[in-house]
Amino acid sequence: MTSAPEYHLIYWRGIPGRGEFVRLAFEATGTAYIDTPGGNDEVVAALSESDYRPVPFAPPVLKSGDMVLGQTANILLFLGPRLGLVPDTEKGRLQVNQLALTALDLSDEANNVHHPIGVSLYYEDQKPEAARAAKLFREERMPKFFEYFEKVLTGNEWLVGDQLSYADLVLWQVVDGLKFAFPKASNRVLRPLASLQRHYERVKNIPNVKRYLESDRRQQYSMWIFRHYPELDDN
Amino acid sequence: MTSAPEYHLIYWRGIPGRGEFVRLAFEATGTAYIDTPGGNDEVVAALSESDYRPVPFAPPVLKSGDMVLGQTANILLFLGPRLGLVPDTEKGRLQVNQLALTALDLSDEANNVHHPIGVSLYYEDQKPEAARAAKLFREERMPKFFEYFEKVLTGNEWLVGDQLSYADLVLWQVVDGLKFAFPKASNRVLRPLASLQRHYERVKNIPNVKRYLESDRRQQYSMWIFRHYPELDDN
Repeated sequence: MTSAPEYHLIYWRGIPGRGEFVRLAFEATGTAYIDTPGGNDEVVAALSESDYRPVPFAPPVLKSGDMVLGQTANILLFLGPRLGLVPDTEKGRLQVNQLALTALDLSDEANNVHHPIGVSLYYEDQKPEAARAAKLFREERMPKFFEYFEKVLTGNEWLVGDQLSYADLVLWQVVDGLKFAFPKASNRVLRPLASLQRHYERVKNIPNVKRYLESDRRQQYSMWIFRHYPELDDN
Repeated sequence: MTSAPEYHLIYWRGIPGRGEFVRLAFEATGTAYIDTPGGNDEVVAALSESDYRPVPFAPPVLKSGDMVLGQTANILLFLGPRLGLVPDTEKGRLQVNQLALTALDLSDEANNVHHPIGVSLYYEDQKPEAARAAKLFREERMPKFFEYFEKVLTGNEWLVGDQLSYADLVLWQVVDGLKFAFPKASNRVLRPLASLQRHYERVKNIPNVKRYLESDRRQQYSMWIFRHYPELDDN
């Protein structure tokens, strides 16, 4: 008799979104997990259940034992030592948390590009503003973050120490999302950044990651953080 | 002979900014700390020193022993147990981290209001966009976050368990900043939220916090996250 997986992820169906940062941690380590069997109703329920304090503010949510956790970086902090995705030292764990938070900041900025005025409006209601925001993102912010990670990776295989950590997975997902959203601009910015490019390929070719990316569990980018609007890319 | 404080905060001079979340943790607990004696040159140096890996991406930076830490939430994660600002259990610490991250998300959204297009442009170069963003922030986002924290605080003195944590300090600072930036809108939104109002007064009146707020170490809000532009407030 097999026992149920001890990790239960809850996230919107049909989009990688922020849930993907958590999924990758499970997939890269071959860890069994349940992924929102109840669909979007389950997401809504997880944010409104009154018997857990504090109820998470937004998905992703992770349930594990008596834990109900919100905030992507917080879920990864919990999973890190359990999945072998952080060093053994406090210092190493803080470095992983720091770099994961930095990559997540870039992900948030990417989301602001197509929704600079507000998340409750459609992209179509803020297109001129998004075009202005996209130009600054392509020319200043994406280069600043990518060059930062290039510097951290220069001479190193992994972001922290000599092993894969969840910071590597978060960075990979953000770079992958930006390659989808801004194919021309990301290609231009990445071209001279040899260490970051090698890191991207290294993570993508981890056998578990590779199998996952080829499976139907990996969802297509569409309408969440990483969106491809050709008019927002280099022209 | 007194030894030097073991905590050295590095942040831009003259603004509370994100450094304030760290300062409040020291001040509320009466912990000695050094605050950027070298001025802004020290901030620039801390982000470019090549002998520490990884160099932080942005301030605030905390140096302590052999640690050089970036990311506000990460610095607080490090300080929490050392300053007695988290419960003893892993579960409690994750809850504090989760709620601090949620309050910091609100702080980031407040920053986007006056800089919706990009942080490298002046507010004056994005005023119409900021006016649109501010309306959504006042009518949707600030209420959503404040009502969330009201729910967490209903029936509770503190956000997590029965003691002050750094999540309380982060939330307090964000509410205080929003009261400065949007005096009319924050007053309107807070009016029915009795638990959040009481929490704000409770933190403000912690003797160490009260003394700090009356000291010249507490800097005035001016031109960083929390800015008061009357045209962006309720009219």
